[in-house]
Amino acid sequence: MYNFTFYNPVKILFGKGQIANIAGEIPTSAKILVTYGGGSIKRNGVYDQVVKALAGHNFMEFGGIEPNPRYETLMQAVELVRRERVDFLLAVGGGSVLDGTKFIAAAVNFLGDPWDILAKKAPVTSALPMGTVLTLPATGSEMNTNAVVTKWATKEKLYFSSPLVFPKFSVLDPETTYSLPPRQIGNGIVDAFTHVAEQYLTFPANSPLQDRMAEAILATLIEEGPKTVQNPTDYDARANVMWCTTMALNGLIGVGVPQDWATHMIGHELTALHNLDHAQTLAVVLPSLLTWQKQQKREKLLQYSDRIWHITDGTAEERIDQAIAKTRDFFEAVGVPTRLSAYGVDTSTIPTIVQRLDQRGMFPLGERRDITGDSVEQILALCA
Amino acid sequence: MYNFTFYNPVKILFGKGQIANIAGEIPTSAKILVTYGGGSIKRNGVYDQVVKALAGHNFMEFGGIEPNPRYETLMQAVELVRRERVDFLLAVGGGSVLDGTKFIAAAVNFLGDPWDILAKKAPVTSALPMGTVLTLPATGSEMNTNAVVTKWATKEKLYFSSPLVFPKFSVLDPETTYSLPPRQIGNGIVDAFTHVAEQYLTFPANSPLQDRMAEAILATLIEEGPKTVQNPTDYDARANVMWCTTMALNGLIGVGVPQDWATHMIGHELTALHNLDHAQTLAVVLPSLLTWQKQQKREKLLQYSDRIWHITDGTAEERIDQAIAKTRDFFEAVGVPTRLSAYGVDTSTIPTIVQRLDQRGMFPLGERRDITGDSVEQILALCA
Repeated sequence: MYNFTFYNPVKILFGKGQIANIAGEIPTSAKILVTYGGGSIKRNGVYDQVVKALAGHNFMEFGGIEPNPRYETLMQAVELVRRERVDFLLAVGGGSVLDGTKFIAAAVNFLGDPWDILAKKAPVTSALPMGTVLTLPATGSEMNTNAVVTKWATKEKLYFSSPLVFPKFSVLDPETTYSLPPRQIGNGIVDAFTHVAEQYLTFPANSPLQDRMAEAILATLIEEGPKTVQNPTDYDARANVMWCTTMALNGLIGVGVPQDWATHMIGHELTALHNLDHAQTLAVVLPSLLTWQKQQKREKLLQYSDRIWHITDGTAEERIDQAIAKTRDFFEAVGVPTRLSAYGVDTSTIPTIVQRLDQRGMFPLGERRDITGDSVEQILALCA
Repeated sequence: MYNFTFYNPVKILFGKGQIANIAGEIPTSAKILVTYGGGSIKRNGVYDQVVKALAGHNFMEFGGIEPNPRYETLMQAVELVRRERVDFLLAVGGGSVLDGTKFIAAAVNFLGDPWDILAKKAPVTSALPMGTVLTLPATGSEMNTNAVVTKWATKEKLYFSSPLVFPKFSVLDPETTYSLPPRQIGNGIVDAFTHVAEQYLTFPANSPLQDRMAEAILATLIEEGPKTVQNPTDYDARANVMWCTTMALNGLIGVGVPQDWATHMIGHELTALHNLDHAQTLAVVLPSLLTWQKQQKREKLLQYSDRIWHITDGTAEERIDQAIAKTRDFFEAVGVPTRLSAYGVDTSTIPTIVQRLDQRGMFPLGERRDITGDSVEQILALCA
């Protein structure tokens, strides 16, 4: 096991009716900005629950944060926060609203151009406190320090991370997800599954507890994911998937082990160029990346084949191929296609993707730092 | 899954050489009291590492905290802290030193008799900040809010819990455990195993991720435990057991599920009356309690039999019996006897134990609140 530091002070309020308890988590004197997305929270009752819970608090709102939240939009919120002297942010929505709100929190008091936080990894030195009400289980943003933001003008999708943007609290009420379209539920399952894969399908580092905890999440997603797609109001299935998505990226399964993240970096470029959903890019890239890295990831892929898919027949090579095929089938089964062609995307932008990753200084990628521009070309060719 | 709140802000510094990093976690202006036990840290180099790391800090020390830390001793430290205006506590040792230091932290500014924190569950309203350097993986105290303290005069072993005594940080360096006697390593494994059992071997609550994470810890303890008993300097085995013991009682596997804790409550009385090690009492009580509660815990015992011990032969009743026998064998294999007779203890104090639990208002115990005084009598009779 490698040395590690683990720290995660996010308070999780999980379950039915927990929105009613947010007032106790926010200073009574706070001037709050409630941030949200396209307005679904006004149709499904979540907005009303939040307003009721905030009775007696001083709050205003900022809606319209897009999927793949746009820098341009978020900077409008930053101006509003500065103008109105807001001192607490409450993000109500999915990963995009949460990520966007983390950026607002970090940008408000940033000296200089806030774009540098993303483009130049300029260190965040202060951030407004924030809380979240999660309505779309997927990204893990509710319990981590990460945020991904897109500059629409240049189609750049970049991330930053800072312990200063840990939410003070996050409400996870599975009932708020009942009204989500199946596409978003499937996406969430694929997103969480891939988060685990990026921290687990690498090389062995003598960390059996982390391995088994990663496998615990994968097995539960495989068991509960299809149930929750088929029956949106199965409370327990939805609760179990929601808790899996949080646990997949709150730092715990990644302590002391090698990590990959190449699938995410390649996927971000596919979203930026072709506007695919984040999870769609992961469903496309992960099976191809695993195929291309069969030798490098051999031992963990065999463990995955055995413990997750219970594959016993065939040579080692065949068992690995079957496990990758099962992964692809699982993504398709929860409604997320795994081929670029299914999204009407051809391979003509591969050179652009490689060039953009290169410009960002991303190479080499992967847990062994052996994925170069040539590798990405070959991986993307397998995604066709 | 039940509704839950999860919050754990302890920063973990895990791995070789991490003691060197504690200075950065303590305010430079702090007046520190370093607390420890019988002095083993002076023989194994840990004390020297701590002193070196604190160079430039203002610190004094308080040694002699006993296994099953005594209220009488801890109150001497409380007086010292008050007199010297100490404002940060650094506990260096095992669970007893950590628990004792949590009590010191809570007692210093307590208005009234600090014994009430334990005996009357009087709420803790403030506590000194503290950090820990863990040298004995077992209790999980390094990453939770619990502490158990014994009043020597009356042989009462009682606990308290408060979020105010979360350590600010805890250092877990597996190398500091190399010099531990095998008895303490075996005890730590049994302690962690039982912590998991208390949160897992109850009744199903549709929480498959929590179940699998609990199973992940049990399987890893079974795999790595004997290795670390046999070879104290196998770094990875010791690191894996250490991380298991922390994860077993940091709150995570217990969210949203029923919990038992009857084994601990009965065990505390055995320690108080007969001076058995804490883990020895658990090794004695758990197999008998599981046997006595075979019907109440039937579904989870069958799952445990299948997933942890891979038992496939026999009737359901036989598979449960085999799983309990395997549990007993495992405890014995790591050097912890599982019968009262092995410790020279007879059953004559059973009525006293029942009476004491009754006086503390403990009944009914267990996840179904169905363990009465009569039940405890029968469970303890099985422990002979």
